[in-house]
Amino acid sequence: MSGIPSIVNESRSIQKPESNLTAALSNSPFMRACRREPVPHTPIWLMRQAGRYMREYREVRARMSFLELCKTPSVAAEVTVTAAERLGVDAAIIFADILLIVEPMGIELEFARHEGPTIHNPVRTAGDVDRLREVGDVDSLEYVLEAIRQTRASLRSDLPLIGFSGAPFTLASYIIEGGGSRNYVHTKSLMYTDQGAWDSMMSLISRALVKYLNAQIVAGAQAVQLFDSWVGCLNADDYREYVLPHTRSVVSGLTPGTPVIHFGTGTSALLELMREAGGDVIGLDWRVRLDEAWQRIGHDVAVMGNLDPVALFAGKDYIRTQARKILEQTAGRPGHIFNLGHGILPQTPVENVIGLVETVHELSAK
Amino acid sequence: MSGIPSIVNESRSIQKPESNLTAALSNSPFMRACRREPVPHTPIWLMRQAGRYMREYREVRARMSFLELCKTPSVAAEVTVTAAERLGVDAAIIFADILLIVEPMGIELEFARHEGPTIHNPVRTAGDVDRLREVGDVDSLEYVLEAIRQTRASLRSDLPLIGFSGAPFTLASYIIEGGGSRNYVHTKSLMYTDQGAWDSMMSLISRALVKYLNAQIVAGAQAVQLFDSWVGCLNADDYREYVLPHTRSVVSGLTPGTPVIHFGTGTSALLELMREAGGDVIGLDWRVRLDEAWQRIGHDVAVMGNLDPVALFAGKDYIRTQARKILEQTAGRPGHIFNLGHGILPQTPVENVIGLVETVHELSAK
Repeated sequence: MSGIPSIVNESRSIQKPESNLTAALSNSPFMRACRREPVPHTPIWLMRQAGRYMREYREVRARMSFLELCKTPSVAAEVTVTAAERLGVDAAIIFADILLIVEPMGIELEFARHEGPTIHNPVRTAGDVDRLREVGDVDSLEYVLEAIRQTRASLRSDLPLIGFSGAPFTLASYIIEGGGSRNYVHTKSLMYTDQGAWDSMMSLISRALVKYLNAQIVAGAQAVQLFDSWVGCLNADDYREYVLPHTRSVVSGLTPGTPVIHFGTGTSALLELMREAGGDVIGLDWRVRLDEAWQRIGHDVAVMGNLDPVALFAGKDYIRTQARKILEQTAGRPGHIFNLGHGILPQTPVENVIGLVETVHELSAK
Repeated sequence: MSGIPSIVNESRSIQKPESNLTAALSNSPFMRACRREPVPHTPIWLMRQAGRYMREYREVRARMSFLELCKTPSVAAEVTVTAAERLGVDAAIIFADILLIVEPMGIELEFARHEGPTIHNPVRTAGDVDRLREVGDVDSLEYVLEAIRQTRASLRSDLPLIGFSGAPFTLASYIIEGGGSRNYVHTKSLMYTDQGAWDSMMSLISRALVKYLNAQIVAGAQAVQLFDSWVGCLNADDYREYVLPHTRSVVSGLTPGTPVIHFGTGTSALLELMREAGGDVIGLDWRVRLDEAWQRIGHDVAVMGNLDPVALFAGKDYIRTQARKILEQTAGRPGHIFNLGHGILPQTPVENVIGLVETVHELSAK
């Protein structure tokens, strides 16, 4: 199931530090929580913690586009480190985009100002699928790897760095729809009407993801996250048939010893199957109760989540109450990483984000 | 819980035909299924069955805007009847919009061409809430009532007509956001930071809905549906605190003897609470399995659903397989109304919709 039997299997739960896993990193609260070991406080990081809600980030973006930022390792590293230090979180996540891996497949990707990603040559037919390029190596994504190396070099030595990508379904849905979507008509139509083409595309994406995420690990990421952000548009039968085998092949191809976080939104009907697909940590959105979700997927896997990102727009008292509720739902069980249920929203007051980090540390301190 | 104890409570399950409920209507498969009585075949209707996917509808819309259509009873009636007859479904639903009730509250509503609804004076503060107008009577919505009367007059005499509106949360979210939303930041912010204003607004909406839906029933609707289309953005705790009491007050205020369908999307973590809020039929989207959902909410309530609208883009064999899967999940239990898990999408091939209706009738024939 998982590529990390040392974590899934209690009897093999001691990790040998790899080249990029120093004792300080391995013993960090974040890494310990991934392995469901006791922690001095609940680790917290926040999806999209380097983002538009932060003045420092907006200043950088005033000088360059989103894609330029992703492709300029020194600046991507600076943005990554600044956010982690400013917030006092327990992990950094490399500044990048879930879609970058589609470019070497021959997909033309653009981020228009204040809009989501646009793909100029969406894949709609079996013929289009045939024209996708196999990603033989990830040299063209060297900028991400270099950003990871530079981040790792300047990040506090006990602060883990998370690499990531979109998961196969979410990547396929962008490639097929040509951008964000409400109903995923083209994606599901291809899936339902030409399973051969669908599987072929998902396999190509999965092979690329294994190479890309393993390269991120070699470059210095201590953990990786698969963002299956839009998989919640599927029902369980579709997930089992069209997605699970592919996501599983990615997870099982990843470097043993590196925790994999498997995240999606709107997945309350899919959690058991996501767990079956793999991952050492299952990311929960805010729609499910953490205690119920953890019970359903089993306490032999870690969980991440799951404050509603909009809670950060309310006052400090409200945030504290909600954070406490989530922490209480763990019943003190090791293996919880605090996070939002989805990324930080652009208008979020930065002081509330900092306040949440402090609150989680304080409330969970042993 | 429900305003229809005659349906919820087995011992009072015989309905007395009301003035607008003839024996032919009362004995129709749709009405029998609402009361969980045996049916000759599973009744089916489809949300947004009169819509852009249908040539006849597009021809009408070439002559007038969406709101003009809603406000011209003869044409709204024509569109309603045409769709029901063309498809051979077991119920008609009055052509209208879930948002029409907000206009008498002083909300300025516009439907821009090919876009969703826009509200020009969104409600953001307690002061804005105070300026909302109490809906004393629904005279300004007379056009909906007249459309219902005209539809009822020309509809087949054994074909039930469904009235409807948005549910309190979904209406509030449109009024606050000013249109559709991805993250519901303004809605949740008001909810979290000023519960007094929130409750005041939800109560005002709920009072209006009781009047409006009861007027639709008097005008000739045999059943009514509450569309809580966007409530799936909330978690269960929020639903229980901020939504449930208000939806319950609407349902309990509706004319006894008239089935209430309570529908939402993305609600897999909310179904038990939606049931608790009320309704004789709970509408399920396609993300949940019908058998599991029905088990969770209890077999003493009817269910509606739940084919993925995108399934209608695939071939007839695929549609047939999926329809059979859903019918099998009922295990032959009375109280299932077949529907999609959300509205028909604009590009749906009309022949596939007709094919689905025939297939459901054929597969479920006793």
